[in-house]
Amino acid sequence: MSTFDLKDFLSVQQTRVESLLLSRANRLESTGTPPRLAEAMRYSLLAGGKRLRPILCLVFSDSVRKQSGSLSPADDAACALEYIHTYSLIHDDLPAMDNDDYRRGRPTSHKVFGEAMAILAGDALLTEAFNVLASGPEPVRGALCRELAVAAGSAGMVGGQVLDIAEDRPAQIDYLSRMHSLKTGALIRAACRMGVLAAGGNADALQRADTYGDSIGLAFQIADDILDVISTPEKMGKPVHADAAAGRHTYPAVIGLEASWMLAERKVADAVAAVEPLEGAGGPLSVIARYVLERNS
Amino acid sequence: MSTFDLKDFLSVQQTRVESLLLSRANRLESTGTPPRLAEAMRYSLLAGGKRLRPILCLVFSDSVRKQSGSLSPADDAACALEYIHTYSLIHDDLPAMDNDDYRRGRPTSHKVFGEAMAILAGDALLTEAFNVLASGPEPVRGALCRELAVAAGSAGMVGGQVLDIAEDRPAQIDYLSRMHSLKTGALIRAACRMGVLAAGGNADALQRADTYGDSIGLAFQIADDILDVISTPEKMGKPVHADAAAGRHTYPAVIGLEASWMLAERKVADAVAAVEPLEGAGGPLSVIARYVLERNS
Repeated sequence: MSTFDLKDFLSVQQTRVESLLLSRANRLESTGTPPRLAEAMRYSLLAGGKRLRPILCLVFSDSVRKQSGSLSPADDAACALEYIHTYSLIHDDLPAMDNDDYRRGRPTSHKVFGEAMAILAGDALLTEAFNVLASGPEPVRGALCRELAVAAGSAGMVGGQVLDIAEDRPAQIDYLSRMHSLKTGALIRAACRMGVLAAGGNADALQRADTYGDSIGLAFQIADDILDVISTPEKMGKPVHADAAAGRHTYPAVIGLEASWMLAERKVADAVAAVEPLEGAGGPLSVIARYVLERNS
Repeated sequence: MSTFDLKDFLSVQQTRVESLLLSRANRLESTGTPPRLAEAMRYSLLAGGKRLRPILCLVFSDSVRKQSGSLSPADDAACALEYIHTYSLIHDDLPAMDNDDYRRGRPTSHKVFGEAMAILAGDALLTEAFNVLASGPEPVRGALCRELAVAAGSAGMVGGQVLDIAEDRPAQIDYLSRMHSLKTGALIRAACRMGVLAAGGNADALQRADTYGDSIGLAFQIADDILDVISTPEKMGKPVHADAAAGRHTYPAVIGLEASWMLAERKVADAVAAVEPLEGAGGPLSVIARYVLERNS
């Protein structure tokens, strides 16, 4: 049994992230953003969510500098990651993409502000992510911009989205794993790496962040696919079997439920092993990694 | 009469820019971009155009380092600026925005690749702009990322687009000039400043780039508005009086044709005065500034 309370820990970290996002989002007008655009950016940015990416970034930074606190060198990076994640949700929800009317129980950006403004709010959040990073201290701001741009760009998140919407997607594990690795994995891995970079961690810590991010990104996706097969609408708070209904290729559909479980468990073990030298046994990062699978039970 | 041949000069610079864009665009697949996305990015990026922003960037850099050549410290910045400009055109052309079927005589991105891919190609170009910049040398890459993010973001180009599509736009010169200053002026000014930054220019050169960019950005916009009023479809190669038909507020409509001319001429004079200490009298930047008005005659 862990003495570490994950729920309390995540709650503290979420409060930390909300406060960072709020203070930046409230400064938009004073730095020249038109009020209506600022409103649309805040609407999506402050709509809650797990804040997984900024939390991973902050916790990796904390583990490198051996302290936690509200003034972290990774604060900017944490916000930039959530800006990117938020813009991707706004654009994914557009009528031309997934055409979703609701997200997190609220109308999507284009339902509230119109399609043109939703496109622009996404563009603005994407651009502001780099403004936030590039306004930070030398020499790390350049490295952080590069890390985020690679992870979010055409050979990262956007590339993965293109693979996901392709009409001729092959039902093969290689294609599926490359698609997820780009679409969600790249930004999760970047979140971990950016935490280490912001805190001035060494090459070993950076490599550990890389392995951890890569592994939990994949485990998370497999767990999501499994949940969609085995869970009930009551547990999930949303319709299940949506993947199969939409004809989406999932891990259980392609390699089977049992093999999917085993792959996810192996990835979680890889992640836990990678961070033990950084935070000791049973630290927050290993607990977060294990939670990826435990939330199924 | 100028001994300097602007047409030849621009042609040489355009060739220089095309070659930079082409070599980067052809590397997209080898760095992990899915082929269909790379194709969509190249379709818009390599569709020609004046290449005004990258040329301004390169010429400012040349004027600071007192030499011109294909291996300039501003090469990355020049490409990044055109990536941003190109993404903004793709998104502006979308059905939810201007709903344009053609640009530069070719079908727009969403007509060729579909709306989802056009949104993603724009997102990818926007993100890659920062990848290109952030992959450059320290210490200037951080400063360049910041300059571009501020100019292209919510208090720059995207903000100006929001002001332009607002339904309750007041027909006032203040609103009109703020809208243009954000929508097109900010990126033109950034192009000039980034050339100086990339070449390691001093604060005086940076201030001169600022004044020049600001002035020609405004002069260019006023000249465009005037052209739409006084020109013929034969001269323009496109329908005229489009602004009035679309109910757009223009300088001639708001302050009159004569006052518009005088304002544009004053701005060109400001621009010419700003760059004389950098390039001497009658240098390329002053000729480019004068061309903004001369193309009307």
